[in-house]
This record gives sequence, structure tokens and C-alpha cells, in this order.
Amino acid sequence: MAARPRVVIVGGGFAGLWAARALASAPVEIVLVDRGNHHLFQPLLYQVATAGLSAPDIAAPLRHILRSQRNVEVRMATVTAIDAAGKRIALEDGATLGFDFLLLASGATHAYFGHEQWAQHAPGLKTLDDALDLRRKLLLAFERAEAASDPAERAAWLSFAIVGGGPTGVELAGTLAEIARHTLKDEFRNIDPASARVRLVEAGPRVLATFPQALSEQAQRQLEKLGVEVSLGTPVSDINADGYTLGDAFVPAKTVVWAAGVAASKLGAMPGVPLDRAGRVQVRPDLGVPGYPHIFVAGDLAALAQADGRPVPGVAPAAKQMGRYVAQVIRARLAGQAPPPPFAYRDYGNLATIGRMAAVVDLGRLRFSGLPAWWFWLLMHVFFLIGFRNRLVVLLNWWWAYWSYQRGARIILGNGRDPSAPE
Amino acid sequence: MAARPRVVIVGGGFAGLWAARALASAPVEIVLVDRGNHHLFQPLLYQVATAGLSAPDIAAPLRHILRSQRNVEVRMATVTAIDAAGKRIALEDGATLGFDFLLLASGATHAYFGHEQWAQHAPGLKTLDDALDLRRKLLLAFERAEAASDPAERAAWLSFAIVGGGPTGVELAGTLAEIARHTLKDEFRNIDPASARVRLVEAGPRVLATFPQALSEQAQRQLEKLGVEVSLGTPVSDINADGYTLGDAFVPAKTVVWAAGVAASKLGAMPGVPLDRAGRVQVRPDLGVPGYPHIFVAGDLAALAQADGRPVPGVAPAAKQMGRYVAQVIRARLAGQAPPPPFAYRDYGNLATIGRMAAVVDLGRLRFSGLPAWWFWLLMHVFFLIGFRNRLVVLLNWWWAYWSYQRGARIILGNGRDPSAPE
Repeated sequence: MAARPRVVIVGGGFAGLWAARALASAPVEIVLVDRGNHHLFQPLLYQVATAGLSAPDIAAPLRHILRSQRNVEVRMATVTAIDAAGKRIALEDGATLGFDFLLLASGATHAYFGHEQWAQHAPGLKTLDDALDLRRKLLLAFERAEAASDPAERAAWLSFAIVGGGPTGVELAGTLAEIARHTLKDEFRNIDPASARVRLVEAGPRVLATFPQALSEQAQRQLEKLGVEVSLGTPVSDINADGYTLGDAFVPAKTVVWAAGVAASKLGAMPGVPLDRAGRVQVRPDLGVPGYPHIFVAGDLAALAQADGRPVPGVAPAAKQMGRYVAQVIRARLAGQAPPPPFAYRDYGNLATIGRMAAVVDLGRLRFSGLPAWWFWLLMHVFFLIGFRNRLVVLLNWWWAYWSYQRGARIILGNGRDPSAPE
Repeated sequence: MAARPRVVIVGGGFAGLWAARALASAPVEIVLVDRGNHHLFQPLLYQVATAGLSAPDIAAPLRHILRSQRNVEVRMATVTAIDAAGKRIALEDGATLGFDFLLLASGATHAYFGHEQWAQHAPGLKTLDDALDLRRKLLLAFERAEAASDPAERAAWLSFAIVGGGPTGVELAGTLAEIARHTLKDEFRNIDPASARVRLVEAGPRVLATFPQALSEQAQRQLEKLGVEVSLGTPVSDINADGYTLGDAFVPAKTVVWAAGVAASKLGAMPGVPLDRAGRVQVRPDLGVPGYPHIFVAGDLAALAQADGRPVPGVAPAAKQMGRYVAQVIRARLAGQAPPPPFAYRDYGNLATIGRMAAVVDLGRLRFSGLPAWWFWLLMHVFFLIGFRNRLVVLLNWWWAYWSYQRGARIILGNGRDPSAPE
């Protein structure tokens, strides 16, 4: 063990990265472990999936972000096991890493609620690779429709369903409708992309359920204006390669996207640790893991109730606040000071974008939607993007997309990795 | 068969796309078939491989480029066979497509000269997917070196070889040296990226063999100044997962890149058609295929001697000129006019970039190198990039890379497509 206590942080998302930064001047040695090499600005992931932005526009190498913070070592590795009692984690490459403090911030992934066979037909959206896979799938559907000679097959390729009416589902549905109606205009000879059916399927009574009722209704109206068909109140009961079943009705659709549920990273499963239904760790008020005073959980992997009983939401601001809070707890403990008061989530508001010039904003007292909400959303997101270069490129791409209805990243990648020439 | 004669163009590279455009007002129906959905600006592909640009920065959807040209239909499909006598091509999806005229412009891919087993250890660079694979391989090598505990293994991960001293090899070697020496500075804790060995291996007596001797020497000096070790006169005799053999000496190197040879697309192989050693079709002076007056070949797939006996080079300007020439031949034939004079390549000059502020330019009488050549190269390449948005984004990325030594696309993609959360 090194002279300085070692803090191992698992996950370079908002929680992990903000914790590492908040420990910059602390007398610790930090190892930040992530499976990828980059921090991802997840709120814009749907833009990569819908070909508005390139993958590197919304990601930055963790090493680069943290290069001047000399007490951090970034390790690109997959964690395979946590020995909570022995204070060690095991990595895929066979190495083990001892810790004095551990912060688990490995996030969440999409969940199929026991219907794992749906995963192959209805991919979800959590990583950059997911986004590129989804982009390929969406763009290829129009290509297949153009090449189809059978009208029923053509219709099935032009039928899209997004399952789940939360922020991701709403963003995907709105943007996909825009692509079909505007972006692809004039480009096909055998099909009219604008005839594509884009359906948002939500099992509950309204879209954007975490927003006030009035904003949900406005979001639905804006979606419908963009050309999205919103289906409420009936869950999807089956998904296969040819379509999905809604209630008792089978709907042909070659492209189904899953935006309906998340499950926490499996790393939270430690002996004796209480998990909620989604696999999140039920942390103590100081974000510690019951029974393991040196292990903390932050971000989407943590389950914690606010003072009013509602759960802390799985959003970027909450993850950042949790990451910073854990750093504060560790600093206090090392300094022999009293621990900070229990973690309290400061809710600055809630935004969701819907599509071209459509969004909803809930700042508590101030609620608005439509074009002003869209501008507000855009400015907030560009402002929070990591890295100066990325902000400029993203702004430029958006400005271009706005005026031209075009989407600059409409390139199908990974379509047959056969080394023969393009034919 | 349609009322208007049908021209089928196979390949949406420079030759195929320029031919399609030059037939815009001709009384024909054009079908442009490409395996991908995009036109690729191949001269900048090495920038995607070395994380300077994103894949969509140097590509544009063929449909979008040709959307207003109403006599073109774009078909994303792989051609599996050509029935030259029956005037039909077969597509992978089972469809066949009859033609009155056929232009084969399916290009070239990298070739291993009978050492196909080297392909898995030394990937080449021809498509966007190749570039993303190479980017991942290059970035991961530094990650593996950082994690290695054995000094020999660490050294092998920091040993890079680029096989082939043509323009692609020179660009890759120069840029990789820049990444190791500048871009990754301060980001690692266990290795010094600047200690990486970047070796350019050329079997012939000089790099950039198609340039004048003096410029080859200048290119070599500029490479060495950037930190590249140039090895001339000895071919690589073996490549495996741990390194390569140069003459009799085995050199440990976990990363070997192939930039040494090209072979033409296999579509040129038709009964009775003469091919050269690289598989290119030995076309008539009008770029027609001997024995098949309705079939033409343009771009890298065509082998043709210039008046001075030297072959028409496999470069973008030659491909564009050939594509336009074939369109001219077809128009003349349809109009019952005399055919144009035999194809003659107009050589406007030859450029190669080497790395940060280093390049060579050969405009015949005017030859220069270094910083002015680099600026000239940059302006020419941005000017020729397709699509207004791309030019702006590329310029912005370059401006940023120039001032900061940073490379915006340093994101490892496709590294484990497992749906579990980042850990």
C-alpha cells in the first residue's frame, strides 16, 4: 500500500469524474478505472444515434481531462470482482488493485425486465457503441425500404417503434420523425421517407412521467406535430425480428428501439448489501454502503430517497453532486473532521428535448415549452459539454443542422468489415 | 429495359461519382451501386485513423450528394457477379440489374502479396471502418503499455511499425510520431509516450518513390525530425502478433500497420479480359474493356499507360478525370457523334503530407517542402472536401489540433460490444 491512502474510483461518468476532480488537492492517490477511455456526455448520446453529431463530439479521453491532476492515475480496464472485506478489486487483465476507499460509480444499463430475448431486436442506448449501432440500424432501414420490391416488406422497413416515453424515448422519436420528414427529403427514388411511421410506445398514462402533467401534455402535442404517433397506456407484450405486439395486436416494424428501463451495474452486488429492484445499492445518507464504511456509491448505481420521499433521480446533475459529496466525506474522514451533513440533492430543474425547436423545461416555478425551451436546452447542453473544441464543433454542427435540416453524421459504419473494395 | 438507356455505375468513389455527375443532363437513367452509403474523401482517411478527424467529417451520403440529380438512383448493395455478355449485374440481395452501359469503378484494396496471414496482424487503411479499427489499435497500444508490468512487454506495446513508404505510410508514421511526442504528453503515469519507437519500413531505396529524388530526401529528413525512424532497402519478411522480421532480425512490435500494396477489386475479373499483376483491368485508350464495348473501367481498377509509358497513377484527380471521360464517351455514343480523343491524364502535381507542418509538393517546375508545402496541402485538401459543413468542421478541427497539439477524435470505439454498463 502506498504512503498516501488510495482512493479507487470505478467509472468515469459524471459521478466518478466529479469525485476525482473534487479530490484534486486531497492527500490521496486516486486510481480511476473505466472500461472505456473516455468520459461520455450521455445527455447528447441520442444525437450520435440520430446522426446529428459524431461520436468524438460528445466524448473526451479521461486521461486528457485529468492530465494535469497529478494525484490521479487513469486505468482503462474492466472490473471483474470486488473484494469488499479484503479492500481489493480484480481487473480483467488479472491484476488486482488494493484500496483504502472505493467509490463505485459504474452506472446503469438498459434492462428488458426479464425479456432478455428482446435485446437483439430492440437495442438500447447507453454507450457510444450503442449509438453507432443504432445509427446504422436506423439509416439501413431506409436503404432496405428503398430496395424492397414487396409493398408489405417496404412498409415494415418504414415502420419504427420506440419503446419507452422517458426523455431518451421522446428525443429519439422526435428526431427520427424529423429525419424521415425533412432530412431524407428528395434522396430516395422508390420510397417517400416522410411516409415512415414513427411510433412512441409508453406503457404508462403519459410521456415524460417525471415532469408536471401540463408539460407532459405539451410534449405529446409537440411530438405529434413533428409526426410521431404516441401510444399510451398499453405495454409492449412481445418483440421479434418482424415487429412488436401491443396488447393483442401485432404491428410489423423492422426497427424497434428500447428506451424503457434501466438496471444498475452488477458491481453493486456485494455480500450483505441491500439492493433495490433495479439492482441499485441502497446507500446510507452519506452514500456509504451499509456494512462497508470505506465503500461509497454515487450516480445511477445509488438508490437514495430525498427528504420528501422521492428518489434522487438518475440524471447528470445528481451524479455530479453525489461524486463531489463523496469526495467531501473522504476528505473529512482523512482530516479527522466531523462528517458533512447527509447528502441532499439540489434540484435545479428538469429539461427534455423533443426535436426540432421543441422541448420542455421545468424549473419549478418557471415552466415553458416549444422554441424558447429548445433554445434553453441547447445552450445548457453546449455549456455543460466538456472541452472547448467539442463545444465549438457541436455548435457548428447544430447551426448547420438547424438551417439545412441536414445531419452531418449520416454515415453507415461497420456495415460488413470485409476487406474487399467498395463495390 | 427502360425507355432511356441505363448506365450502371459500380462504386461511389471519385471515378464513379464524377461520372454520374457528368451524366446529369444526358438522356440516360443511372443506377449508382455502392457497398456503403457514402462517398469517402480517401486522401484524409489517415486523419480518421490517427484521431484528428471524425469519420463523418470526411464522408457524405451518396444519396445526399446526388439528391437533386433526378436521373440517378443510388443503390446501397454489394455486387456479387457481372454477366458481361448478358449485360447484367447480380446483387447480394438476389436482385439483378440490367445495363446498357456499365462503368466499373470499384477501386482497390490493400494487398499482402501472398502473405494473407499478415492481414490479421498488420491491418491496412482503405475504408472508414479500417480507419476506426486502426484508431482503436493505436490508442489501445498506449493503454496496454501503461498497464504492462513487464518492461519487455511495455516496450513491445510502445513499438510501432508502418510497412510501406508511400504517401499513406509517410502520413501515418509522421502523425503517429506527433501523437506520441506531443498529443499524449502528461497523460500517462507509468510510461513516457514520447519514448515510443515509430518506424517506417520501406523495401525500396527511398520514401515517396513517385516523387523526385530530392523531395524524397526532404520527406525523409522531415520524418526523422518528427521522430520517425526510417528503414530503407530491406523488406519485411514476416509479421506475427508479437512483431515483424526485417531481413533476419525480429523486432518486437505489438502494432504493425500495412501501407505497402494495393490490389484491384475482384470485379474486374471477367472472361477474356486482360488484367495486370495487381488485378487491374488493362483498358483500351477509351477506358473500355477489350471485347466488351459497353463496359468501361475508371479509377484505381483501371490500368492504362500514359504517352510517356508511365502508368496513370492511382490518385483522386486521375479517378475524377477518368470518370468524366467515360461520361463523355457514353454521351458521344448515344448522340451518334465521333468518340472523343483517347484519355490523357492531366497531371497538376503531386502532394504528400508528412506530419505537423511538414509536407512535400511537386508541381513539375515548382517543388517545395516544409511549412509552405504543409499549408498548400491543407488548403488544397479542405478545398476539395465535399460538402460545405464538412469543410468548416475540418478546418476548425485542424485549427484546434494545430494550436493545441490535441486530436479531437481520440475516442476508443467498438471496444467490447457488451451491453453491461461501463465498469
